[in-house]
Amino acid sequence: MPGNSFGRVFTVTTFGESHGRAVGAIIDGIPPNILLSENDIQTELDRRRPGQSTVSTPRNEKDRVEILSGVFNGITTGTPVFLLIKNEDMDSSEYEAIKHLYRPGHADYTYTAKYGIRDWRGSGRASGRETAARVAAGAVAKKILREEGISIIGYALEIAGVRAMKIDFSQIEANIVRSPDAEKADQMVARIEDVRKKGDSVGGMVEVVVDGCSPGLGEPVFDKLDALLAHAVMSVGAVKAVEIGSGIEAARMRGSSFNDHFFIKDGQVRTKTNNAGGILGGISTGERIVLRAAIRPPASIAVPQTTVSTDGTEETIEIHGRHDPCIVPRVVPVIEAMMAITLADCLLQKKMYC
Amino acid sequence: MPGNSFGRVFTVTTFGESHGRAVGAIIDGIPPNILLSENDIQTELDRRRPGQSTVSTPRNEKDRVEILSGVFNGITTGTPVFLLIKNEDMDSSEYEAIKHLYRPGHADYTYTAKYGIRDWRGSGRASGRETAARVAAGAVAKKILREEGISIIGYALEIAGVRAMKIDFSQIEANIVRSPDAEKADQMVARIEDVRKKGDSVGGMVEVVVDGCSPGLGEPVFDKLDALLAHAVMSVGAVKAVEIGSGIEAARMRGSSFNDHFFIKDGQVRTKTNNAGGILGGISTGERIVLRAAIRPPASIAVPQTTVSTDGTEETIEIHGRHDPCIVPRVVPVIEAMMAITLADCLLQKKMYC
Amino acid sequence: MPGNSFGRVFTVTTFGESHGRAVGAIIDGIPPNILLSENDIQTELDRRRPGQSTVSTPRNEKDRVEILSGVFNGITTGTPVFLLIKNEDMDSSEYEAIKHLYRPGHADYTYTAKYGIRDWRGSGRASGRETAARVAAGAVAKKILREEGISIIGYALEIAGVRAMKIDFSQIEANIVRSPDAEKADQMVARIEDVRKKGDSVGGMVEVVVDGCSPGLGEPVFDKLDALLAHAVMSVGAVKAVEIGSGIEAARMRGSSFNDHFFIKDGQVRTKTNNAGGILGGISTGERIVLRAAIRPPASIAVPQTTVSTDGTEETIEIHGRHDPCIVPRVVPVIEAMMAITLADCLLQKKMYC
Amino acid sequence: MPGNSFGRVFTVTTFGESHGRAVGAIIDGIPPNILLSENDIQTELDRRRPGQSTVSTPRNEKDRVEILSGVFNGITTGTPVFLLIKNEDMDSSEYEAIKHLYRPGHADYTYTAKYGIRDWRGSGRASGRETAARVAAGAVAKKILREEGISIIGYALEIAGVRAMKIDFSQIEANIVRSPDAEKADQMVARIEDVRKKGDSVGGMVEVVVDGCSPGLGEPVFDKLDALLAHAVMSVGAVKAVEIGSGIEAARMRGSSFNDHFFIKDGQVRTKTNNAGGILGGISTGERIVLRAAIRPPASIAVPQTTVSTDGTEETIEIHGRHDPCIVPRVVPVIEAMMAITLADCLLQKKMYC
Repeated sequence: MPGNSFGRVFTVTTFGESHGRAVGAIIDGIPPNILLSENDIQTELDRRRPGQSTVSTPRNEKDRVEILSGVFNGITTGTPVFLLIKNEDMDSSEYEAIKHLYRPGHADYTYTAKYGIRDWRGSGRASGRETAARVAAGAVAKKILREEGISIIGYALEIAGVRAMKIDFSQIEANIVRSPDAEKADQMVARIEDVRKKGDSVGGMVEVVVDGCSPGLGEPVFDKLDALLAHAVMSVGAVKAVEIGSGIEAARMRGSSFNDHFFIKDGQVRTKTNNAGGILGGISTGERIVLRAAIRPPASIAVPQTTVSTDGTEETIEIHGRHDPCIVPRVVPVIEAMMAITLADCLLQKKMYC
Repeated sequence: MPGNSFGRVFTVTTFGESHGRAVGAIIDGIPPNILLSENDIQTELDRRRPGQSTVSTPRNEKDRVEILSGVFNGITTGTPVFLLIKNEDMDSSEYEAIKHLYRPGHADYTYTAKYGIRDWRGSGRASGRETAARVAAGAVAKKILREEGISIIGYALEIAGVRAMKIDFSQIEANIVRSPDAEKADQMVARIEDVRKKGDSVGGMVEVVVDGCSPGLGEPVFDKLDALLAHAVMSVGAVKAVEIGSGIEAARMRGSSFNDHFFIKDGQVRTKTNNAGGILGGISTGERIVLRAAIRPPASIAVPQTTVSTDGTEETIEIHGRHDPCIVPRVVPVIEAMMAITLADCLLQKKMYC
Repeated sequence: MPGNSFGRVFTVTTFGESHGRAVGAIIDGIPPNILLSENDIQTELDRRRPGQSTVSTPRNEKDRVEILSGVFNGITTGTPVFLLIKNEDMDSSEYEAIKHLYRPGHADYTYTAKYGIRDWRGSGRASGRETAARVAAGAVAKKILREEGISIIGYALEIAGVRAMKIDFSQIEANIVRSPDAEKADQMVARIEDVRKKGDSVGGMVEVVVDGCSPGLGEPVFDKLDALLAHAVMSVGAVKAVEIGSGIEAARMRGSSFNDHFFIKDGQVRTKTNNAGGILGGISTGERIVLRAAIRPPASIAVPQTTVSTDGTEETIEIHGRHDPCIVPRVVPVIEAMMAITLADCLLQKKMYC
Repeated sequence: MPGNSFGRVFTVTTFGESHGRAVGAIIDGIPPNILLSENDIQTELDRRRPGQSTVSTPRNEKDRVEILSGVFNGITTGTPVFLLIKNEDMDSSEYEAIKHLYRPGHADYTYTAKYGIRDWRGSGRASGRETAARVAAGAVAKKILREEGISIIGYALEIAGVRAMKIDFSQIEANIVRSPDAEKADQMVARIEDVRKKGDSVGGMVEVVVDGCSPGLGEPVFDKLDALLAHAVMSVGAVKAVEIGSGIEAARMRGSSFNDHFFIKDGQVRTKTNNAGGILGGISTGERIVLRAAIRPPASIAVPQTTVSTDGTEETIEIHGRHDPCIVPRVVPVIEAMMAITLADCLLQKKMYC
């Protein structure tokens, strides 16, 4: 499988380019007899959709999803679900002018090196637009997880150096940067606006927590749950680091403070702390799963940059057009989606051994 | 594939428990006509082997590898190479006494939750001993990479808060902590000795650099090279975070400083900086690949900890025996091995499209 | 991967039900820089399409294929190619009346047993309509094979007991049963017409030959080329047996007559006979690959049959509507497609070891 | 995965050459808490073992299996089970003399064409010896199936043109050709003895029946149960054809006689006939699964044959040594094993959707 599929039993295969006719996904391995509607998916797509706020790109894609198979009378049948999202508001003209240049921070050069050809319209397959298909598939995964009592909540922990100081889930969708701290949200927005005016961009940190996971998810050795999650999340283009639980801080802790002590609560084995982030030996403990991802600043900026052309001459490039000055708010549902797909996959695998 | 295989075409499948009769691996997908000897592999195993220094466990395993198939007259034939490492210096007696307790920070509880049974002798399959098979397979991968001019060098960037201030590759194997900074190595050793005396343990950071990678390695979308490396490295038990290139720092940078500008050198497309860590859009650029992993402190400590037993009562546990106070020096070759396996896999996949 | 994908590197994933909104496929692993148009695919679809002759179902599907991704300016880019075929001429009314009955010879009962739900409209996912997506993907595979000088030609070797006595490739597409023997074609048509009038159906044998395969395709042990072809061809619903080379007859031969003797011709190692069917030890020899498949008579017949209903009562069923009295002519391109997909997959895998 | 693994969740990966140091298998995906001993496996290996009777090769391999992992106190733990079978009675001297020749009917030429190197000792990886690992893994699969009430019984339906006229399971292991018809067994033996004296070899048909399979095994579309079984069985070197249910005969039947009518018996949906061979739409019906395989005559014969050498000259070859004149009796447990592995895999996959 050359890279466009993810998952072993709950398997998502995607296709589509930014300025092609559509993006979409086939999901194989969906259990039968689950209620599934286009609206279930649309809700998630709307969270990722361009043009949703003043801090995102003004490209106006409706991102309407159509379910073309696998659902009969509103219920999954166990056959593949195909999700189609047509591209509508495309404008390739800005790309025409710079199609001979390798944009810094983009995949123009590496795709050319690998394939000898690239679809230069809107970054082609390497575009963030490809993640619409992931979010659609993730919405289906979330449905499966919800039936098992598993919830996935993500938010902007930090943007442009401004860090949320309190985590209030009810605030996340109430501000345009998906900050769990309403007060810091305003500062985050201000910073984004500031860099946007300068034609620049900023990054941040996304944190996602998973509650309700029963113990026993994840496979040993190579397919540890944390390894699968790292794979899933690092496959999102803008991610440069993934932390589980205490993450980087674990490197500076002692065993006596890092180890989470077990105790019994309501007849369940629980841990007093959660430095492990809900995973021990690659298998879920039943505690909250905690993952953080570092999001780099978007590569498309109006600031002049030096680069080279496809024929090897050095030039200066300025990238104008409809770009996100900060991708963090829109990447939150993408990371949630990848984690949902991973967990749904593990959940089905676990059932094999019941 | 339930978790004990890694790689799509250069495929490693491992088996074995810490106190079972052996650990080992079948490697499928090795190109034919490569010179391969047991000695090639032994060199790497000796770097991971227990008992190699005063800062590692005194368990004295020779870790002698035997090649039982796939090599004819010293040359690979294209058929699976089987690597066997017998376990010899096992002592399960210490585990007998605590087999009814879930050790904090270990996988005892999660394996029991998942499988309803666990091999309690020396952590069974969840033991770090399992990584001997990875290092053996990684040594074969390194051979393949070396033929293409690719080198992989890892070191302890930081141990117990002491960080290497200079990176001198020639120093790495010259000190027992694998520090690239000889001066800091002494401080690292001192810190480890200190926590060991207290029955405690410490973590650190490993950094690995890959040189000589041609552009074009890695697959798009889900199997980006950085995603595969994150999967590979996070599957090592002690790892809690993985960074590529600027990693976490990328979250605080602006696009104008993060983007690596292209230029031409010796007819090659190069970048002036390398915040991307040698990967753009999931595909290698030809620049140095840089990865860092946060290593948590080992879970087995002599300090008293509270925990619960398999029948649900709370107890205090002290873990004595032959444990590593710091796993960082020994985990360096393990992370190198996982990266080598990943890169060898990508290298073979790239050839399909030539 | 729960069954809707085929191939390891040239990977086809399909979706769609007979009376759903569409069927289609994502093909991952297509090499870049191949000319590919909708017309290349349409030609093959037209060979499979319903309503093409008097001996096939009158359901009138245009089977228009649309390429929605992976092709840029008429050339493949190495990213997934998505093929969409909308369903248009559906009529579920006939199925409404018998939706409570398990049709003999159909998958109604087994899908219900497996999934607890089934899309009863036109056999749902178990319909032969699903093979339109296979033929579309196979057309892409054929393009890749043709570039390597590999051709795949299939025909009706036998229908309703009438066997072709001569194999003239030029005749195959010149008659409506795809017989390579023009004279026998008329008899085959007559037999089909005869059973159709009786409301019954007939089977036959398809033979496919592959020319131009270089030696070295196929993987050892489990993924022998003949094993992969058997998997591919037996996955076509109507197939009940697969033979390679001498096939069943090999069971009655002696080693001295079965073994194909090697000789040298034009500097190439060749064999004087070809009982092996072009494959030795699971790897292609360079000789013609020969495969035969036994095709059962279609299950939908107007003759009264006894069966049971979903609530367990026994009933009599007569299946009227637009059904094929003999599927052999239309299954020829389907089997060719499955073999093309398999061979394209092996061809790409072979390149890894060059 | 380059060909040496089989199964998606119950996954068998094998290694080893005929005259190498050992053959063996890692089985991943074994459910925990199953009683498993070396003796369970040895019983099956003894049925395949060389030297078991006057009609098999006199190579005297004990084929002693050792379980080196995955079993703790006699019970599976859910971790990989590794099975090792050392090679002992090897004699490569006969091969030394003909190592420059491509033996007709063998894989010498194709392995050389594919890999550019081959282990010429006893056919290397292409040897039937490789199937010892399959039988060992199949024994484990049989254990899992037996717990679900599924039995697999194979026999020689036909040898050298002599066909069993009655199927008496109690006779199968009571004669050296594994004929279910005691009377015909003597004729089969006589025919084998006859060709052996002439330095020649003969083939035959193996039939395997599976009882106790519940409805619902198998995946739709590409991984139909019959397709997986065809793959599994055709991957056994000597097999040239695979039939399911009525097999080839289905091509000559009419729908009205081929379709199996449903009825109710003891509250179960059953079919009056079983032309389908227990599988409809690729999913098990609950009826007996019936598969037949055509076995070609062994390639190693003493009769002089013309062939070519590795340097392209034509020569005559006579193959002396310890070869089977008929492989049918020994291939019975191999085909059973492959079917057992396939069914165990499907059984586990089915549980995911419960």
